[in-house]
Amino acid sequence: MARSWAAVRTWLGCPGLLGCFLLGFLMGWFTKPNEPPPSTSDMYENVRQKLVDEMKAENIKQFLRSFTKLPHLAGTEQNFLLAKQIQGQWKEFGLDSAELVHYDVLLSYPNETQPNYISVIDDQGNEIFNTSSFEPPPRGYENVTDILPPYNAFSPQGMPEVKNAILAGAQGIILYSDPADYCAPGVDPYPDGWNLPGGGAQRGNVLNLNGAGDPLTPGYPAKEYTFRYKVNEGVGIPKIPVHPIGYHDAEVLLRAMGGPAAPDSSWKGSLNVSYNIGPGFADSSSTRKVRMHVHSNSKITRIYNVIGVLRGAVEPDRYIIFGGHRDSWVFGGIDPTTGAAVLQEVVRSFGKMKMEGWRPKRTIIFASWDAEEFGLLGSTEWAEENARVLQERAVAYINTDSSIEGNYTLRVDCTPLLYRLVYNLTKEISSPDEGYEKKSLYESWLEKDPAPENNSYPRINKLGSGSDFEAYFQRLGIASGRVRYTKNRKADKFSNYPVYHTVYETFELVEKFYDPTFKKQLTIAKLRGKLVYELADSQIIPFDCRDYGEALKGYSNRIYKLAKKHEEQLKTYKVSFDPLFSAVVNFSEAAAEFHRRLEKVDKKDPLAVRIMNDQLMFIERAFIDPLGLPGRKFYRHVIFAPSSHNKYAGESFPGIYDALFDIESKADQQEAWEEVKRQISIAAFTVQAAAGTLKEVA
Amino acid sequence: MARSWAAVRTWLGCPGLLGCFLLGFLMGWFTKPNEPPPSTSDMYENVRQKLVDEMKAENIKQFLRSFTKLPHLAGTEQNFLLAKQIQGQWKEFGLDSAELVHYDVLLSYPNETQPNYISVIDDQGNEIFNTSSFEPPPRGYENVTDILPPYNAFSPQGMPEVKNAILAGAQGIILYSDPADYCAPGVDPYPDGWNLPGGGAQRGNVLNLNGAGDPLTPGYPAKEYTFRYKVNEGVGIPKIPVHPIGYHDAEVLLRAMGGPAAPDSSWKGSLNVSYNIGPGFADSSSTRKVRMHVHSNSKITRIYNVIGVLRGAVEPDRYIIFGGHRDSWVFGGIDPTTGAAVLQEVVRSFGKMKMEGWRPKRTIIFASWDAEEFGLLGSTEWAEENARVLQERAVAYINTDSSIEGNYTLRVDCTPLLYRLVYNLTKEISSPDEGYEKKSLYESWLEKDPAPENNSYPRINKLGSGSDFEAYFQRLGIASGRVRYTKNRKADKFSNYPVYHTVYETFELVEKFYDPTFKKQLTIAKLRGKLVYELADSQIIPFDCRDYGEALKGYSNRIYKLAKKHEEQLKTYKVSFDPLFSAVVNFSEAAAEFHRRLEKVDKKDPLAVRIMNDQLMFIERAFIDPLGLPGRKFYRHVIFAPSSHNKYAGESFPGIYDALFDIESKADQQEAWEEVKRQISIAAFTVQAAAGTLKEVA
Repeated sequence: MARSWAAVRTWLGCPGLLGCFLLGFLMGWFTKPNEPPPSTSDMYENVRQKLVDEMKAENIKQFLRSFTKLPHLAGTEQNFLLAKQIQGQWKEFGLDSAELVHYDVLLSYPNETQPNYISVIDDQGNEIFNTSSFEPPPRGYENVTDILPPYNAFSPQGMPEVKNAILAGAQGIILYSDPADYCAPGVDPYPDGWNLPGGGAQRGNVLNLNGAGDPLTPGYPAKEYTFRYKVNEGVGIPKIPVHPIGYHDAEVLLRAMGGPAAPDSSWKGSLNVSYNIGPGFADSSSTRKVRMHVHSNSKITRIYNVIGVLRGAVEPDRYIIFGGHRDSWVFGGIDPTTGAAVLQEVVRSFGKMKMEGWRPKRTIIFASWDAEEFGLLGSTEWAEENARVLQERAVAYINTDSSIEGNYTLRVDCTPLLYRLVYNLTKEISSPDEGYEKKSLYESWLEKDPAPENNSYPRINKLGSGSDFEAYFQRLGIASGRVRYTKNRKADKFSNYPVYHTVYETFELVEKFYDPTFKKQLTIAKLRGKLVYELADSQIIPFDCRDYGEALKGYSNRIYKLAKKHEEQLKTYKVSFDPLFSAVVNFSEAAAEFHRRLEKVDKKDPLAVRIMNDQLMFIERAFIDPLGLPGRKFYRHVIFAPSSHNKYAGESFPGIYDALFDIESKADQQEAWEEVKRQISIAAFTVQAAAGTLKEVA
Repeated sequence: MARSWAAVRTWLGCPGLLGCFLLGFLMGWFTKPNEPPPSTSDMYENVRQKLVDEMKAENIKQFLRSFTKLPHLAGTEQNFLLAKQIQGQWKEFGLDSAELVHYDVLLSYPNETQPNYISVIDDQGNEIFNTSSFEPPPRGYENVTDILPPYNAFSPQGMPEVKNAILAGAQGIILYSDPADYCAPGVDPYPDGWNLPGGGAQRGNVLNLNGAGDPLTPGYPAKEYTFRYKVNEGVGIPKIPVHPIGYHDAEVLLRAMGGPAAPDSSWKGSLNVSYNIGPGFADSSSTRKVRMHVHSNSKITRIYNVIGVLRGAVEPDRYIIFGGHRDSWVFGGIDPTTGAAVLQEVVRSFGKMKMEGWRPKRTIIFASWDAEEFGLLGSTEWAEENARVLQERAVAYINTDSSIEGNYTLRVDCTPLLYRLVYNLTKEISSPDEGYEKKSLYESWLEKDPAPENNSYPRINKLGSGSDFEAYFQRLGIASGRVRYTKNRKADKFSNYPVYHTVYETFELVEKFYDPTFKKQLTIAKLRGKLVYELADSQIIPFDCRDYGEALKGYSNRIYKLAKKHEEQLKTYKVSFDPLFSAVVNFSEAAAEFHRRLEKVDKKDPLAVRIMNDQLMFIERAFIDPLGLPGRKFYRHVIFAPSSHNKYAGESFPGIYDALFDIESKADQQEAWEEVKRQISIAAFTVQAAAGTLKEVA
C-alpha cells in the first residue's frame, strides 16, 4: 500500500489533535521496520520507456564504425586497447564499476615466417600449384596491418602428403566454403554485393571443447596459479592438420586432383563444407599428391574481459548478465561488432537512467568477452571463476553477439521460461521491416516466421551453442536467451551469411547491404535492452514455468516418436517412456499451481516475494545434472544441449537422443538399449525433481 | 525494533489525546507493509530455555526401552512398523507433517537355509572345525526370533578353499574382532561387564561405496522408475567372500592353521582386525585348508525414511535438517537407538513449543533414516531425490546417530562454521560428568579433551563418514555436525566400543554400564536440540566464517609439512604451495570483513538480513567442486573427505593428501608430482572462490 498523506490533511482544522495524531502516526511508522524506497516514485517512473527512447540508430552506427577500423583478434594489442576503451566508456556512461578481468588461455596463430597453404605436387615432387596465403583485402583496408590470413585455430602443425591411391585414412583436412553453402543466387560477390568472393576463406577454430573453455584448464579459470595440462593433453585439440581455402583455390585443387567437377555458384549442396582428403581422392588415378603446409603455433596468451556493474537497489545479490564478445577474426563487421555496438548503446542508456537517479531492483552485469572465436574462452573462464556466486545469484543471461545475420526478420533462441516475455516485449516494439510500418515487431515476426508446431505464435528456437551463453546455460543452468535479425530461412539456404569470418566482414558491408538505416540493429538493441530491464526491475521475475511444461511435453513426444521407429526393440528390451511422460505431467501441474500461488503472493511482503522469486530463479538450475551428459561433462543441462552433430543447433533430451542415435548400427543391442533406458530414467527423474522445486517450500 | 506498548500507557490520563494518538499510531502502523510477527513476543519468549527444560532423561530411557525390544534390521517388517510408530508419534507431538518416504535399494541378507561359516578341513577333506553360525543371545532375549547371525552384508557368495602353500592372492577375507581392539583391560565380557564376549562378532557391510548410496542407482534416487545396474555392475561390491567371526572361533582357527599364538585379551595390538587369509598362512607347513561358506543373498528391498516437518514462520524455504538412522543390525541398544531416542525427545520438545503457539523462523526437517548400516542408503537416496531443493535451501544438517559411544566426555565432529556455536552452547549446558557437578559441559570437555593444537579450547574433529551426514556434507556441501558422548581417548584403545554391532548391544547394556541415569544422553539431546534451535531461530545464521579461515590455515600448514618430507622433489618438479597459502589469507581477510559488515547490517531490513544469511548459508557450498575428488565423484568437498584409508576419519585437503600418499613408490615421478600440483591448484582456486562469495554482493 502506498503511503497516503491525504488522511493527515483532513485533521488540519484541529492542531492539537493533529499534533497528537502525527506523534502517534510517526511512532507507528518508525516502530515498523524499514523497506527500500518503492520503485514507483517520480524518479523511477517511465524508465521502462525512457530507456529504449534513449537508444539511437546513429549511436549504434558510430560505435560500429569506431570498433571496426582495425582487426581485434583475441590476444592482440588492438583488442586489449579496445577493451580499455570500452572500460573507459562504461565508466563515463555511469556504471558503478568497469574492470578488465584477464585470463591466460591457449590461443593459436599462423606462423609469421612460414605461411600455411596447400600444394599440388607432381610426380617429380614439384609444387605445381599453391593456394593463396591471404585474402585480397577490401577497398580502403589495403594498408591495414595485422590482418591474419585465413587459418584454422588449433590445427596441429604438419606437412602431410597425401596420394590418393595409398590413402587409408585422412591425414589432414582441407575446408573450403562451397558456393552452394556460401553464395546466394543472383548476388554479386563483395564489394559489389554481399556474396563470398572466390578468394575469401572462412576462419574458425577446430577445437572439440564441448564446453570446457581453455583447453589446458578444463573446469577451472586460467589464472596465473592454475595448473595447466600440456598442449598435447589439452581438451579437444585435433590430431591432424586442418586448413581453410577459398573456392577459387578449391576449384583448381579439385580439378588438378581429378576430383568432382569444378564448383560454381549454381551447385546445390552437392559438396560438403568439409572436404576430407581421404575418400575424395580415392577414385582418382592421378599420380599427383596434395601437400598441406600448416605451421600455426599454439601459445598461452593473455585475454581481457570487460566487466561492468550497475548495482541493484533492492536485491543487489541478484544478477542479470548481459554479455557478448568483442574479439573478431578480422574487422568483425558483423560478428561480433553489430552485437558489441548494441551492447555499448544499451550500457549508455542504462547509464543515463542511473545518472538521473534511477537504479534497477537487481544488479546488472555487463560483459565484453574476449576470445569467443577461439572456443568461447573469455566467457567460459569467467563463468568458471565465478561459478559459485553465479549459481547462487544469477537470474538470467542475455547474449549480445552479432545483432544481425540477415535482415529479414527476428530470430530468437531462448529458454522456454522467456517465451512469454519475448512475445510481450516484441509487441511493444515497432517493426523495422519494410511494409510493416504500422505494425509491431511481433506481427512482422509472426507473419514471416511462424512456429512450425503452432503457427499462431512466432518461431522460437532451442539454445544450442556457438556463442557465449553456452557456459551460463548448458553448464550452470542460468536461464538464457539471444535475439538477432536473421535471413529468410525459406529462401536463403546459405549457412550463417556468405562472408562470415572473412576479411570482407566490414563496416561497409553492414552499411551498404545489411542495415543501411541501422534500424534493425536499433530494434535488436531495444529488445535486448528491454529483456535486461524487465529481468532486472520487475518485482516478480518475468519467467513463466507453464511454458516450460508445454515445451517439455513437445520434446517428450518428439523423442518418443523417434524411438518408436524401433518399435520391435522397444518391446524386446522393455523400454518405456511412461515415467518421462508422467514426470512431464507432474511438472506442468506444479507449474500451473505455482503460478496460481504467485498471483496471490503478498507483494508488500519482501520475503514472501523473494521466496517465490528464488523458486523462479532456480527452476532452470533444477535441470542441471552435476554428472553431466555422457562424455560431455560440461554439458549438464538435461533438457537441452548443443547437438552432438552441429554445435550451433540445440537438441532436446540430448541424453536420450544421443543414446538412440544410429542405435541400429551398435554391436551390442542389449547394452545400447539399456543405455536408452538409463537416459530415460535420468530425464524422468530430472523433470520430476524440477517439478519438486516449484511446490510450496514447506 | 520491538513494538513497545509502554509509550501508549503514558497517555492514559488523557483519553481524547490518547484516542487521537492511537488512531495516528494505528494508521502509521497499518500504512506500512506487513512483516511476520517478531519472535520476541510473549509467546515466543523463553523458547530457547523452555525447549531444553522440556527434555527429560526418563523419556529418553522409555524411548530407548521401547525401540530396542526387537531387532530393527533395514528392510524387515519390524523396522517398517517402527517407522509407522515414529511417524504416528511425530504427528501426535505436533509436527506439521510426518511422511514415510520409501526407496527400493539393494540390501543383503544371510541365506535362511544355508548358514555362513568357516571350516578347517584336513587332508582327507573332512571339516574338522566349523565356526559358530550364531551368537549366544543375551539373557532375556533367548526367545526373540529374527535375530540374524553375524555376517558381512554384500559379501559375494562363495566357498573358496585356501591352502596356505599355494596361496597367490586372497580368495576370501575372514574378519574377527581382536581382543586387543575390542576388549578393555579388567572389564568382564557382557553381561557381567561391557567387553565383547568370545562368541560375539561384529556385523557390517563391506561395500566400497564412496558416497554413492544404493549400489545400483548411483547419483539418482532408487524409485520405482529408476534405471538399475545389474548387481555385478553395482558400485563397490567386493569380488571375494567376506565373513566375520568371534575371537573364540578365531583362536581355534588360527591354532589349527599354525598361525600366530592364540589371542587373549592381554595382546596389545599385535593382530589386525582384518586378518587376510593370504599372507597369514604363508609361513605354515600345515596341509590343512580353510573353507569359507558364504551364501548370503543380495536383493532389492523396500526401505522407509520418516520425514517430519515443522514449518518455519518467517523463512519457510530455509531448512535445518536433524536426522539419524533407525535401522540396527540387531537390537541397536547403542547404535543407533541412543540417537533415535534422543531424536524422539527432541521432536517431542519442539512439538510441545509449536503446540503452545511457537514456530521457528526457519523450517526444521526431522528424519529417521533407514538402511544406514547397509551404506547410508536411506539418507543418501533422500539427498539424491531432493538434491536441488537442498542445494538451494538447506542451512545445516545435524546428525543424530548414537548419542553415546562411551561415557567419559563430549566428542564433536563438525564444520568449522559451527565451532563457535558449539563452544557457546556447551557453556550453557551443565556437565553430566561425576566430579563436575557445578561446571558446564564446556568446562568438563575442555579439561578432559583439549585440542591438540591449542589447549585453551576443547578438541573438535573433522567430519569423515560412517554416518548419515555424509551425503549432506561431502556431496552437497551443507554445513554439518555431530555430537555424542565418547570414551577416554587416552585410556581406551579399543575402536568404537567392544560390543559394537553385536547381539549384545541391548537396552540393558546402556542402562547397566554406559548411562544408568540417562544423563549423558539427556545432555546430548539438549546440545543437539540447542544446535537445531539456534540454527532455525536466530535472526542471523550462527555460523562463523573466521573460524573456517583459521582451520584452513592449519590444514594448509599441515599438508605443506607433509609435502616438505619430499623437499628435493618439491624443487625438482617446481611444486609450490604459495597459491594455496595466499588463497587462505584472502579467505581469512574476506571472512573478517564479512563479519564486520554483518555486525552493521540493518536487522530491521528483512532483505538485507536475508542477503547476508544467504552468503552464510552458501559458504559451505562454495567448497564443493562439481567434478568431485579423483576416483570419488560423490565426494565433492575440496576441504574435507572421508579418509581414503579409514572411512570413519576425516581428511583435510584430501585431493592433495591422496596425491602425496605413498608418492615415493609411484613409477612415474613426473606424472605423480604433476598430479600434486594439479590438486594444489584446485584447492587454491576453491578457497579463493569461496572467499569471493563472502565479498559484498555488488
